[in-house]
Parts: sequence; C-alpha cells; structure tokens
Amino acid sequence: MTRSYLVDGDVVPADEATVRVDDRGFLYGDAAFETIRIYGGNPFEWDRHLDRLADTCSLLSLTHDLKRSTLRTWVDEVLEANAMQEGAIRLSITRGVQPGVLSPRDAVDPTVVILVRPLPRGGINGNATWEDPAMVKFVETQKIPSAALPARAKTHNYLNGILARLELDTEDEAILLDGAGRVTEGTISNLFIVDGDRIKTPPLHRDVLPGITRALTLETAGMLDIPTEEVDLWPDDLLEADEVFMTNTTSEIRPIDQIDGTPIDTGSITDRLRKTLLERIEEKHY
Amino acid sequence: MTRSYLVDGDVVPADEATVRVDDRGFLYGDAAFETIRIYGGNPFEWDRHLDRLADTCSLLSLTHDLKRSTLRTWVDEVLEANAMQEGAIRLSITRGVQPGVLSPRDAVDPTVVILVRPLPRGGINGNATWEDPAMVKFVETQKIPSAALPARAKTHNYLNGILARLELDTEDEAILLDGAGRVTEGTISNLFIVDGDRIKTPPLHRDVLPGITRALTLETAGMLDIPTEEVDLWPDDLLEADEVFMTNTTSEIRPIDQIDGTPIDTGSITDRLRKTLLERIEEKHY
Repeated sequence: MTRSYLVDGDVVPADEATVRVDDRGFLYGDAAFETIRIYGGNPFEWDRHLDRLADTCSLLSLTHDLKRSTLRTWVDEVLEANAMQEGAIRLSITRGVQPGVLSPRDAVDPTVVILVRPLPRGGINGNATWEDPAMVKFVETQKIPSAALPARAKTHNYLNGILARLELDTEDEAILLDGAGRVTEGTISNLFIVDGDRIKTPPLHRDVLPGITRALTLETAGMLDIPTEEVDLWPDDLLEADEVFMTNTTSEIRPIDQIDGTPIDTGSITDRLRKTLLERIEEKHY
Repeated sequence: MTRSYLVDGDVVPADEATVRVDDRGFLYGDAAFETIRIYGGNPFEWDRHLDRLADTCSLLSLTHDLKRSTLRTWVDEVLEANAMQEGAIRLSITRGVQPGVLSPRDAVDPTVVILVRPLPRGGINGNATWEDPAMVKFVETQKIPSAALPARAKTHNYLNGILARLELDTEDEAILLDGAGRVTEGTISNLFIVDGDRIKTPPLHRDVLPGITRALTLETAGMLDIPTEEVDLWPDDLLEADEVFMTNTTSEIRPIDQIDGTPIDTGSITDRLRKTLLERIEEKHY
C-alpha cells in the first residue's frame, strides 16, 4: 500500500505531496507543527496538541482561520487513506506564499501539511517504539535562548537540534545545556530525574518545550502520590540521579541507562510511571 | 512572461516549482542558501558566494557532490529562461529526503532550488533598490548565539529574523543585539558606523554573518584610504555616530537616517563608499 500524505485538504501519494518553493515554510522554516500519536485510530491528546499549535502560531503572529474541526476532518481522511490504526502524524501550518521578502504580511493563506508514519500498537498491551533504555550525551551545541526564539514554539526551525544530533556517535539522544550550563531538554524529548522518592524536571521558563508527555508524566506522578519538582537541573544532577528518563510523544516514557558513557541505574519509579501512563492510554483508546 | 524557477536542474513555471513535503529543507529548514545579485546578466561575486555556501554546508555536515560548474550552468539556464539581466537569485541546497527522523544521514541526495526576482539595473548608472535612507529599530528579539547556531551559516532557519521583523512598525530593518547588549546585525544586513574619519563594524566572532557586501565595503574603504575597525559596537555607538549605514547584497550600501525614532545625519563617507562600490560594479559588469 502506497503511503499518502495530505496537503491543503488533498490526500496525495507521499512522493507526489509537495509545497511550492516560494512557500515561507520552505524559504524560512516559517511554520508551526505538532507530532501527534495515533492509538487505535485516534489522535492522542488532540486538544492539548491543538492548544500548543495555536500557541506556536500566536508566538509567530501566524494568523489563520483554519477551524480545528477542519483539521480534524483532514486528519481522519489521511488516517483512513492509509488505513492507519497505529502511528504518528506530523501536522504543519505554514505562513504560505506571500509577496515581498522576510517581513510577514498580516493576510495569511496558510499551507497545511499532514505526514503520517506507522508505529507499533500502543498501550500497556502494545509495544514501545524502542527496544532498550536510551544512551544520551551532553553536547556542545547550546540550546537557543528563548530571548532569540521561544522554546515553547514548535517550529520548522530545527537546525539547533540537528547540530546537536550531529555530535552523537551511537547515542540515541543529545541533551542541550543553556548558556549557563543548565540542562534544558533533548532534541525531541523532555528530561526527568528520580531523586529519592520524587521526580524532578527543568521548569518551563528554562528554554524547555512544554511537552505533552512531560505534562502527562507530572499528572501520572500525582496519581501515584510521587512528589514532583520543576527545578533547575545541572549535568551532575543527572549523572548522580537514582534514575533518569526522557519523555516524548512517540517514545512515551523511556528510561536512560547511560549518559556520556557513565552507566545509570534504571529503576522502579520510572517503571511505575511508564506502566501507569500506558494503562491510561490502554483504557482510553483500546 | 511567466516567471520560472529551477528545481534539481529543471526549469519550471514558478507556481509549479515544488519540493516534497518530506524534504528536510521543508521539515526542518535543513538547507543552506545564498542570495546573489545579477548585474548585466552575470552573478556578482559568484566565487565568494559559492565559498560561503560551501562553508554553510560544511557547518551543517551537508555533504554533497554538486559541482560549482553544474550550479553555474543551472543559474545560467534559469536566468536565460527568465531573460533576466538585472535581479537576484536565491540558490538553496537542502539535505533532501532521508529515512528516519531528525538525525541526518551521511548519504545526501541534495535538492537544489533556484528562485529569481527582477531588480533595477545596478552600477553607478543604475538605480538602487531603495528610494530613501533606512529607518531602523533596535528590537527585543535577541540574536541567536553562535554556540546554538553559527551566525556564519546562512540557512533556511530564519524565524529569529522574522520575529525581529514582526516588532517593526514602519521601519525598514530590525537591529538585533546579543545577550550582552552588543549590536550584531540586521535581519538581512550588516551594520557600519562612521566615527570621525573611520568606519567601524562588529567583528565576525560576534554572531555576525560574513556578508559579501560587508567585505566589499571594507575593501572599498581600503582603496579610499578610509581606516576601518572591526570592533564591538553598542546601541549608543550607533545613536552617537557621525553616520550609520547598512550593507546587503541587494541594497548594497544604504544610509540609515533614523534609529528608534532618533534622526541620524547621512553624510559624505557613506556616500563616497557607495559611489566607489557602484563604480566598481559598473566597470565589472556593464
């Protein structure tokens, strides 16, 4: 079966799905996006993802009149065309084609693109997208400060993360520090440590994306009476932690067992959080 | 006459010139580019632009086997198709379509895109692309530090400049400061001041693009025995300068007569530099 994508409401074969070269999404990465997990044919946490998409568009002053119901119809159409029950979609809104150079115009005719890719069945009775705990590395590439580009904007400007990834050898994820040396996040993940009975993660004002799975993890900890702290973390906090894990829409909660070559114990609190989250997904979508 | 662009060697009508939505140039802004002025049918400073393009590709580890002679042939073809004697081209090389997510693969099948736009005749007997001196503004959006994304890389990640432009009202250009408050550059220009008998511009290690017109301006100053300094500049240095101007491939040397609403005198040193540069262009290409 040929994979299909959606461009501006039209479902087309993946290798024929295109955007114009003068679309600002191509020229400048002038676009907002969300990666949304599909469990049992349903977009997971649709409302939260659409809220964050709206926030990114707002930060970019990318004003469009696309209704959520229209976007949802398009998602359903592309899922149906691919007979996709398990996977992830990448939904992008660009500022489209505009006259002039660089300075955005108020009148936006947005371009909407939805890509899909299959993944294993989710939930507690499914399979993770990964086989082993993650190996990660603190990289030299620093996180872009929010004063230059807000970390909470999820955009097509991804070279900061790509430069970080280029520093990796066999590791699975790169951890970026800010200019002061604090831990911010991975290129596509948020980071948590277990310290005694509690979990800690960098606060959102520290150049960190407000990850949906980050929020779900904090909520899940609340359900399990595991105390949570949103607090500055430094590389040594990770290296000396009882457990370390990362969160991401597709990999959900993934334990980390090696940082810069140093082994890290994986453990029971990460495991309890992960199982409880997967049970919540199972109940909701299967 | 319908405008034509070039994609991977094919000249196509502008509104049919596309890239795939899974091209990394679209997904991540994972692409290098140059804007090159066309004077009398010839690309201006081709070798310098191609050197910088190679430097950007190197910084991105975007390894391709495109020959300069091939790129030049394609430029000539798209200029001919548009019967373009006077204008600018935007030549981009993306990392193309690759399997996987985010982490770049070594094997690159690059996508090459060339856009064109017409401009007035250049040289001392031509016309500038602008009518009046520029009004500029110091914006709140800070320049991305090179530790996060090298300023010398000219890429499709342009949201930092777009956010800066969104702060403008009627001004022509936004000036970005670094985290310490130093002047870096405009969103598409380098900045110079005249201080007594000499010109000053921020040094390249201060998160500044090595502009071709910046370099030509320093060379032109040398020809005119105008001393030059590459030195840290602060907002007050611009506000208190004898003259201020900006440089850019399409606007060449453009005087600035207003910063944050404060009038700035335009003057003879900017004018001498500009005329001498335009005479050099006239001699070379007309």
